[in-house]
Amino acid sequence: MYREKIKVLDCTIRDGGLINNHQFTDEFVRAIYKALSKSGIDYMEFGYRSSRELFPPEDYGAWKYCDDDKIRQIIDGIESNIKISVMVDAHRVKEQEFVPVDESPVDVFRVATYVKDIDKAIELLHRTHDLGYETTANVMAISREIEPDIIEALNQLAKCPVDVVYIVDSFGALYCEQIEYLTKLYKKHLPGKEIGIHCHNNQQLAYANTIEGIIHDVNFVDGSLYGIGRGPGNCCLELLIGFLKNPKFNLSPILKAIQDYMLPLGEKIEWGYLIPYMITSILNEHPRTAIAMRKTADKDKYAEFYEEMREAVD
Amino acid sequence: MYREKIKVLDCTIRDGGLINNHQFTDEFVRAIYKALSKSGIDYMEFGYRSSRELFPPEDYGAWKYCDDDKIRQIIDGIESNIKISVMVDAHRVKEQEFVPVDESPVDVFRVATYVKDIDKAIELLHRTHDLGYETTANVMAISREIEPDIIEALNQLAKCPVDVVYIVDSFGALYCEQIEYLTKLYKKHLPGKEIGIHCHNNQQLAYANTIEGIIHDVNFVDGSLYGIGRGPGNCCLELLIGFLKNPKFNLSPILKAIQDYMLPLGEKIEWGYLIPYMITSILNEHPRTAIAMRKTADKDKYAEFYEEMREAVD
Repeated sequence: MYREKIKVLDCTIRDGGLINNHQFTDEFVRAIYKALSKSGIDYMEFGYRSSRELFPPEDYGAWKYCDDDKIRQIIDGIESNIKISVMVDAHRVKEQEFVPVDESPVDVFRVATYVKDIDKAIELLHRTHDLGYETTANVMAISREIEPDIIEALNQLAKCPVDVVYIVDSFGALYCEQIEYLTKLYKKHLPGKEIGIHCHNNQQLAYANTIEGIIHDVNFVDGSLYGIGRGPGNCCLELLIGFLKNPKFNLSPILKAIQDYMLPLGEKIEWGYLIPYMITSILNEHPRTAIAMRKTADKDKYAEFYEEMREAVD
Repeated sequence: MYREKIKVLDCTIRDGGLINNHQFTDEFVRAIYKALSKSGIDYMEFGYRSSRELFPPEDYGAWKYCDDDKIRQIIDGIESNIKISVMVDAHRVKEQEFVPVDESPVDVFRVATYVKDIDKAIELLHRTHDLGYETTANVMAISREIEPDIIEALNQLAKCPVDVVYIVDSFGALYCEQIEYLTKLYKKHLPGKEIGIHCHNNQQLAYANTIEGIIHDVNFVDGSLYGIGRGPGNCCLELLIGFLKNPKFNLSPILKAIQDYMLPLGEKIEWGYLIPYMITSILNEHPRTAIAMRKTADKDKYAEFYEEMREAVD
């Protein structure tokens, strides 16, 4: 698939940070930045710009806050054309600061929001857009929203200066036909905007659904190295780059980063296809119960977990 | 998805047998037979009916040969409506015996064939059909065949008494649009026959491509417990059963079999998403080189393997 407009965003450090409280070493983040730059990836997301009042620094690593100076320290001296992205939760904005884009290493703010928080998201989108940043709205947990609410949110976003609106399958619950349906709904209600997609891999559908989005004109796609991310993780960046035919992409630095950095990390923290995440997704539930049970001695009692979950959602 | 005509075949013991020389214990096979029977799966494939002249018994377990008596010993005393399937390689038929269906516990013979061996396959399909068995033709490595050759093979199969013709993505190389294309090609050239699909999971597309097949009227789908099978393995049976809505299916016995039997097995033999298999598949190559390199000290040197493979196929 070659379409010049397709842009790839790597969320290794951001979504991966959700499973280690954003505690990557500087060497790790620097190595990933180098590898992604060499491989021609369009955007790298470093983490969240979170409030230190809401999330105390003693509990989290630097990539929970993504201070401009910290980012500058990582990228210093590395040749790169990659754009830098930072995510902000619309419903958790407090004392965080945003300086004008020409005073910051950040190029893009991605605003994560639930449909119910869309007004907060729009306020933040205006604010960051007015400071000169590219902006995206990442509408989370879309598999749980009813159509009139989605349409209302999209109609509001259509009127605000956001560049890209993302379909976010937070629960990894969507099948390809639903991706087609949502993409068409987004296109219809967001004239002139680009559509993005961010999938979770609970049912091994993150990559397939991302391709499905691309087929239906999604131009912004998220991936992560070896699929790292919350729960089972995300769409594997290496699969995406194997699929996209734009000659600017180069798979080798990605494979090298996986063998040198992601394999050792995988021995310390867990992600990937695991039955409890498959169970929460077929029930269209947040993975939090599965994440919790994977930390107990009963982490492999799948049949029992399935029965408990079915009773809980009944 | 509910369509009564959809039939699910489990190939845990057969395709899984390709990674352990078919050496499962009787207790293991019996437990899987019990679980699949309880879960309402339509067919269970036990292994191959291979020639002992070509494959000496000192190198393989019982499921390389699938003798009728051995199957009877496993299923004895277990209540079940599941049909029993055995695979035969069309190009490796020698002294194997096939008795009339009413003297055998086997219900179905599935004939695995390359396009070039289609005449051998058709001979064997006639022979097994005439003995009263259900039959399928499993056309392997379809991602490497050119359209006129596929069409010629399909036209020949259309005239023979085979019940189901399978799309077999042996290299895990196909994307969803190619599945749609092949399914339509099969439907066009095989009037009145059922179409089946058997996918490998090199690019995490086995399940997605199986759904894609179902959308385009494939009614015979293969899965295996926790995706076990050659290389990265197959479509996960648990995902399929989570998706299919026929009330005859029951996910719980499948989850229990995974936790009790597949997890311990996974500590002894390797399958699942691994970068070398992803590399062979994006190059549309047989996984044999990846299988070989996974047995060496260099098993995680992905970037080097990618460069070697690219040179080899150049």
